[in-house]
Amino acid sequence: MQINIFDCVSPLDFRYYGPDLKLRERLAPYVSERGRLQSELRVEATLVAVLEERGLCPPGTAAEVAAATDKVTVEDWAAEDARIHHETRALVNCLQRQVSAAARPFIHFTLTSFDVKDTAAAWRFRRLAEKVLVPDLLELERVLIELALREKDTLQIGRTHGQHAEPITFGFALSGAVSRLAGRIAALQTAAQNLRGKISGAVGAYNAGHLFFEDPEQLERDLLARLGLEPSPSSTQIVEPEFLADYVHALVTTFGVLADLADDMRHLQRTEIAEVGEAFEQDQVGSSTMPHKRNPWNFEHVKSMWKAFMPRIVTVYADQLSEHQRDLTNSASARFVPEMAVALAASVVRLRRQMSRLVTDPGNMRRNFELTAGLVVAEPAYILLAAHGHPDAHEAIRKLTQQAQTTGKGIVDLLQESDELRPYWERFTPAQREILASPEEYTGIAAEKTVRICTRAKEALGIP
Amino acid sequence: MQINIFDCVSPLDFRYYGPDLKLRERLAPYVSERGRLQSELRVEATLVAVLEERGLCPPGTAAEVAAATDKVTVEDWAAEDARIHHETRALVNCLQRQVSAAARPFIHFTLTSFDVKDTAAAWRFRRLAEKVLVPDLLELERVLIELALREKDTLQIGRTHGQHAEPITFGFALSGAVSRLAGRIAALQTAAQNLRGKISGAVGAYNAGHLFFEDPEQLERDLLARLGLEPSPSSTQIVEPEFLADYVHALVTTFGVLADLADDMRHLQRTEIAEVGEAFEQDQVGSSTMPHKRNPWNFEHVKSMWKAFMPRIVTVYADQLSEHQRDLTNSASARFVPEMAVALAASVVRLRRQMSRLVTDPGNMRRNFELTAGLVVAEPAYILLAAHGHPDAHEAIRKLTQQAQTTGKGIVDLLQESDELRPYWERFTPAQREILASPEEYTGIAAEKTVRICTRAKEALGIP
Amino acid sequence: MQINIFDCVSPLDFRYYGPDLKLRERLAPYVSERGRLQSELRVEATLVAVLEERGLCPPGTAAEVAAATDKVTVEDWAAEDARIHHETRALVNCLQRQVSAAARPFIHFTLTSFDVKDTAAAWRFRRLAEKVLVPDLLELERVLIELALREKDTLQIGRTHGQHAEPITFGFALSGAVSRLAGRIAALQTAAQNLRGKISGAVGAYNAGHLFFEDPEQLERDLLARLGLEPSPSSTQIVEPEFLADYVHALVTTFGVLADLADDMRHLQRTEIAEVGEAFEQDQVGSSTMPHKRNPWNFEHVKSMWKAFMPRIVTVYADQLSEHQRDLTNSASARFVPEMAVALAASVVRLRRQMSRLVTDPGNMRRNFELTAGLVVAEPAYILLAAHGHPDAHEAIRKLTQQAQTTGKGIVDLLQESDELRPYWERFTPAQREILASPEEYTGIAAEKTVRICTRAKEALGIP
Amino acid sequence: MQINIFDCVSPLDFRYYGPDLKLRERLAPYVSERGRLQSELRVEATLVAVLEERGLCPPGTAAEVAAATDKVTVEDWAAEDARIHHETRALVNCLQRQVSAAARPFIHFTLTSFDVKDTAAAWRFRRLAEKVLVPDLLELERVLIELALREKDTLQIGRTHGQHAEPITFGFALSGAVSRLAGRIAALQTAAQNLRGKISGAVGAYNAGHLFFEDPEQLERDLLARLGLEPSPSSTQIVEPEFLADYVHALVTTFGVLADLADDMRHLQRTEIAEVGEAFEQDQVGSSTMPHKRNPWNFEHVKSMWKAFMPRIVTVYADQLSEHQRDLTNSASARFVPEMAVALAASVVRLRRQMSRLVTDPGNMRRNFELTAGLVVAEPAYILLAAHGHPDAHEAIRKLTQQAQTTGKGIVDLLQESDELRPYWERFTPAQREILASPEEYTGIAAEKTVRICTRAKEALGIP
Repeated sequence: MQINIFDCVSPLDFRYYGPDLKLRERLAPYVSERGRLQSELRVEATLVAVLEERGLCPPGTAAEVAAATDKVTVEDWAAEDARIHHETRALVNCLQRQVSAAARPFIHFTLTSFDVKDTAAAWRFRRLAEKVLVPDLLELERVLIELALREKDTLQIGRTHGQHAEPITFGFALSGAVSRLAGRIAALQTAAQNLRGKISGAVGAYNAGHLFFEDPEQLERDLLARLGLEPSPSSTQIVEPEFLADYVHALVTTFGVLADLADDMRHLQRTEIAEVGEAFEQDQVGSSTMPHKRNPWNFEHVKSMWKAFMPRIVTVYADQLSEHQRDLTNSASARFVPEMAVALAASVVRLRRQMSRLVTDPGNMRRNFELTAGLVVAEPAYILLAAHGHPDAHEAIRKLTQQAQTTGKGIVDLLQESDELRPYWERFTPAQREILASPEEYTGIAAEKTVRICTRAKEALGIP
Repeated sequence: MQINIFDCVSPLDFRYYGPDLKLRERLAPYVSERGRLQSELRVEATLVAVLEERGLCPPGTAAEVAAATDKVTVEDWAAEDARIHHETRALVNCLQRQVSAAARPFIHFTLTSFDVKDTAAAWRFRRLAEKVLVPDLLELERVLIELALREKDTLQIGRTHGQHAEPITFGFALSGAVSRLAGRIAALQTAAQNLRGKISGAVGAYNAGHLFFEDPEQLERDLLARLGLEPSPSSTQIVEPEFLADYVHALVTTFGVLADLADDMRHLQRTEIAEVGEAFEQDQVGSSTMPHKRNPWNFEHVKSMWKAFMPRIVTVYADQLSEHQRDLTNSASARFVPEMAVALAASVVRLRRQMSRLVTDPGNMRRNFELTAGLVVAEPAYILLAAHGHPDAHEAIRKLTQQAQTTGKGIVDLLQESDELRPYWERFTPAQREILASPEEYTGIAAEKTVRICTRAKEALGIP
Repeated sequence: MQINIFDCVSPLDFRYYGPDLKLRERLAPYVSERGRLQSELRVEATLVAVLEERGLCPPGTAAEVAAATDKVTVEDWAAEDARIHHETRALVNCLQRQVSAAARPFIHFTLTSFDVKDTAAAWRFRRLAEKVLVPDLLELERVLIELALREKDTLQIGRTHGQHAEPITFGFALSGAVSRLAGRIAALQTAAQNLRGKISGAVGAYNAGHLFFEDPEQLERDLLARLGLEPSPSSTQIVEPEFLADYVHALVTTFGVLADLADDMRHLQRTEIAEVGEAFEQDQVGSSTMPHKRNPWNFEHVKSMWKAFMPRIVTVYADQLSEHQRDLTNSASARFVPEMAVALAASVVRLRRQMSRLVTDPGNMRRNFELTAGLVVAEPAYILLAAHGHPDAHEAIRKLTQQAQTTGKGIVDLLQESDELRPYWERFTPAQREILASPEEYTGIAAEKTVRICTRAKEALGIP
Repeated sequence: MQINIFDCVSPLDFRYYGPDLKLRERLAPYVSERGRLQSELRVEATLVAVLEERGLCPPGTAAEVAAATDKVTVEDWAAEDARIHHETRALVNCLQRQVSAAARPFIHFTLTSFDVKDTAAAWRFRRLAEKVLVPDLLELERVLIELALREKDTLQIGRTHGQHAEPITFGFALSGAVSRLAGRIAALQTAAQNLRGKISGAVGAYNAGHLFFEDPEQLERDLLARLGLEPSPSSTQIVEPEFLADYVHALVTTFGVLADLADDMRHLQRTEIAEVGEAFEQDQVGSSTMPHKRNPWNFEHVKSMWKAFMPRIVTVYADQLSEHQRDLTNSASARFVPEMAVALAASVVRLRRQMSRLVTDPGNMRRNFELTAGLVVAEPAYILLAAHGHPDAHEAIRKLTQQAQTTGKGIVDLLQESDELRPYWERFTPAQREILASPEEYTGIAAEKTVRICTRAKEALGIP
């Protein structure tokens, strides 16, 4: 069934995913409805392979069924589902029609719908991470590392509360994103590898399987192993829901790291700050009415998508509750989970593109730094006073900064003028006095730490 | 651009909305991407109509532009947007290409993108309520009223904590949903009528409009009036966000009422309770492996959709914050709001269908009632004791019920056997004793109240 | 039972509410556990008053019970609750002990716990709005109006996407908060007035009441009227939950308006922008290590509280679902709702204090404006070009701004230099040319609109 | 400062935590405000210990400071904080007053507030897990294991969609909770062990530390190691927020497992099902007006608390965003995180108590099972038909069950009566026919799996 993309209601389908053929092609096997059906057919075929391996069906059945899975179309399935209102039975019926009468009984043999659906979902979500999300996140990480290393020595004022605090380097600021993203990539990998399937029947007690298989848990393990999965340690009609919750938590917290980075970039692009900028294309329009505008709209977009998708984890948490051996109130809701991955994937691509061509302005960084360079030394001044024995150094310097703001004089000058503080000043070493004279040197170990973080991230993630 | 529906990622597009042509046709003008563009063209055309009315453009321009809006295709727009990365400017460019050079300058004249977009959104959401959501909710309400009135005398045990409490009637139970739904329909109507537009320019101060119009606020009022809207009392680049928040709150709380009703119905369908059932079609399959199953899956579905969509209001609340005269982090997120209305609309249709053919089983209702009929009189017994002067009636009856459960005797018998309580019993009037003998009569004013609630709902909502 | 405030776990109790005796005194009757018990005793006493009015109990009983409510202590109640594990029965027992045997039977006569609890909660939440929240919000509104009017002519650059857009005035920026807050105050008033009680018994069918009262709904109306309430149009064991949901929605969206204002203020306080500042006390410390810091921590605090409390509305929405005539899974959760009101109340007080002594810096506002004054005219230039017949004015000016940024020349100069555009320029009226020369005049109707919004808010809210 | 517990506004403080002295005593060091201050003093003292170890302060200073931490009272601190409005500086001032002038400069030397606060928080949350949450969860797990093993052979009908599905055992049903809880305990342990501290100064670049320490990262590692912590791989003013997000995710998903179990128990306690019951005390009251009620209120309570606290994770996710080197909008919000742990802890205790004295009714379990025993064989019948070569077994049995419901006959009888199906029946082995005759045997490997799950959980968690 064809639909004009503009008749869709989901912004993913008509805007962020549907028209982006490159992204769509990569994600489709794991997130589209077609992909879902194909993955479920794969589970059905895998069952028959395991049955044949055990001599429970005639040789050749597995190959026949595997070949038949290619012949089942989503259109056939949809028509059958419309007739009988049961999507897994519809799938089974469609598949059975494509095989010989001899093969038919072995399809879906002893399975319940959610043996197929939950197992296929685990397979899809795991592959989705391995084939798309993690590789794309690694690409983003690579870009961030490159940028952080390039800017590791670029002086920038560090800001807390939106106020100038102490100097850092722009590369150091980026290294925080590098480190956090590395952590999340690892978390996503772990959660993806830990997704589980199940082949334990209608209420999880292997009721049907036990009739035919000596060790139905072994059959479950064998079948799942062929799909690269392990079984849920316990199951009802469904897999324990916590494995998926962990996975979605990894998605959401990864999204949070992206949103935080994007948020910083858009603030650094504020007119008054202007330390970075989104690259603009020649023909690009910034505003329908203000021809001069250059908005950080891609960064804004990433944060906006995060706002749209983050709260949806509440649904996943709510779906941890399922009455007795299961109620169906997690069925429709769970169908929306792939959207979260798509939103993240699209945001990763966008952010990578923007960060890889980020325009930085070291001149403005220095200009901004100099706005408060004189006050920045308040911290080292107070600590040096303390180190040289002043019993109430913080308070002394706090008053000095008030004086500096009133008089316009520098802190170092005021320090030397003060009868109370001069004696301490005189004990300062030349190197210590130098720091107070050159606040731009007061960046701690920003540059080395940047290198260290990037190196560690590369090693941990296998980035060359 | 065509897409196979099964290549979509949104369950709305591939399952709940896309393939439901009847629902889709009705909703599309208000929720699809095509509908969005058309509504924005309508705003652009309305501007020119107002300009012409004021003599600010040559006679005939409005008609020319109005005619041109039909010629702008979504495909044209998408191509232009891909080129310049600004969707409203792209719309304006497309529209300008369809008109004479003389008409061109009046298109989008003095407007900013969000004059168009927010105004069009208000128009769409309002119409969506008026043309689809409210009529469909009224249909559901009509079904519920009919059912409540039909079952107003059907004895059912009232349950609190899942435990038998006091008797009611099934119609009375339904009348709660009637009343609550009536309240929510009214709330949705109010919120929809209160959605606002804006024609106040890039930062809300009518900067450009002020250059050309004597009273730009009057122009705003006139333009919006033609769309059935009033202006936002203040605006920045965007309309005050609280009007939409109220609207979404109305959607979400309406959904909650539906989910609560669905939840009750599915519990009443539990095997052990079996007081109601979803109608089943002849060919329908209940389970892929348990051919005997008849699951309340439509009721489960409604609750599941509610779980999927309710938490999304958090995004709308988050979008109340927009920096200064606006940041764009509410842009992508706001595109997903129509999905909430679609999910609700689909659930309304589904619930109406199920409720209109609900299978009820008065026999099972009575059977269940009788399980605890003997204990149900504990409440009237205690109150009658109190009314006749027993100073600690609740405690006395509490002990009596423990005795009843131990001995298997009825409360009335134990009451008469008790030396302490018999004197009070003897003061009971015959009518009072009758109540204790006939617990099925102890339904209060369930039936009358049902009628009263239904009558009031019909009057309030204009249901004949 | 006394507890050291620092042994509490709730930041409200140990930090934001508990130690603020002034705030606590005003809120306590409506939000503390003691206040809850007292309001429930009030409902019990009101019942007896109504019974006496109807001649259903001896004259004087109501007065006796009313007097007795003062004698029930929370400590008595807690001890009884610990004994019998039922808080309403414990309350009844305690009250009964304080009255004569003759009066005892009339206490709680025909009521169920939630007749008392839901009615008392409606009374408390309504009073809370009327006595504290709305008055305090009006105080804040008054401060904002004063500030907006004072600054109505103070030039400020309007910002979208964090980028300079078009000029406004600082008062105009504030007037948006004035307008939105006025809307929310009205919404809160409406929702508070619409809270409902119930006196309909254990399953809402007036089962017990019907035994003794000719018209139990009339008794319900009479009782509630004495508390200033109307009855829930339908009820189960509990009031329809949507009335409270509307109230909490009003709280949360009000909080959103506060958070948005606070967010803007903290960004305007950024070092590079420095257009406003939080007033600092002489002894106040900005940072434990950076003696020079002056952080917008009160504004940050308001946003932080909003982040902490806004998502909690999800619980209220979840509590719309209650099985059959009620399950208790909304009991503990509902106890936390008053915290939301406390968090809002504390934030209102804080924001009012900060806004009433906000430090503004018109000099920095102008300095910032001038950063881009030359580009600001791009919008009027493009619209004037269009108005004078240029068929593609936006594109022409877009290119001109790129040229301006490259060459450093002004847009007006470039306009005159351009062979293509000069002819249009020559048609500009002197007034139109004046605008392009004086971008600081291009503030639309910012000042008048500010006055209009403030006047309307004052009228609507009865602020003198 | 003392407060009467009933004047508190938090239900934790006045009801669930405050009055429960046993629980409070265990939790207080990690969740109360007093505990917070003490843990922060511990960090300050640890700094001096590390300084002394490196010869950076005179011998004996560390001991002096450590001793002084005991002398700082929360009251002192609160008074100082009220004076200077900076809680960490207030703490430092208080501590400095308790030491000699010689020791004073070394307190807080080179630290920023959040070096202390984030490190102390990591220490508290980790200890909270290790000392209270995990041990209590293990206690609950032990109770569940015991119960599951005791009931491993107790026949129960498995339910999906609230409908009878296939038979299991009650112990098997419980084993799902055992398994899921084991998984969550492990997740919580991992997340707790992974919480990180930081000693990297005001913007995370070790600016001050670098002035005085050769390797400030080594000092950070040493200091944190004394607290059992590792450093955040990167930091700004604060630790990377993902470590806490993982911890809260573990809390919330653990809570979900509890809520799911509680939800099942309360449904099994429904009057019509009555398979389990909460133990009731002799004097306990079930309803203020219905003396016969025995409500599953503890189970309801656990679900209610989950509803109240689960959505709060949204705040934690929102706090992943912090502008530049930090904004303070995560400050107030983060103070509420300990409440989530308290709510969970209280629910664990409650659930353990209820489950350890759960009343089970195997008679009712069997009675319920027998309601549909005849239909339960539909699944094995269909699979056996398929196994013996029937090409459309599911459809055949689906029709048979419709026939069974119409005629009242058993499926096995109908099978033998059917000309079409009898041939297959005749191929069934005696053992297979036996299954159809004895549906209560059709429990798969429920009992063995229960044992396996419990054994694995015990091993994994070190439960003897």
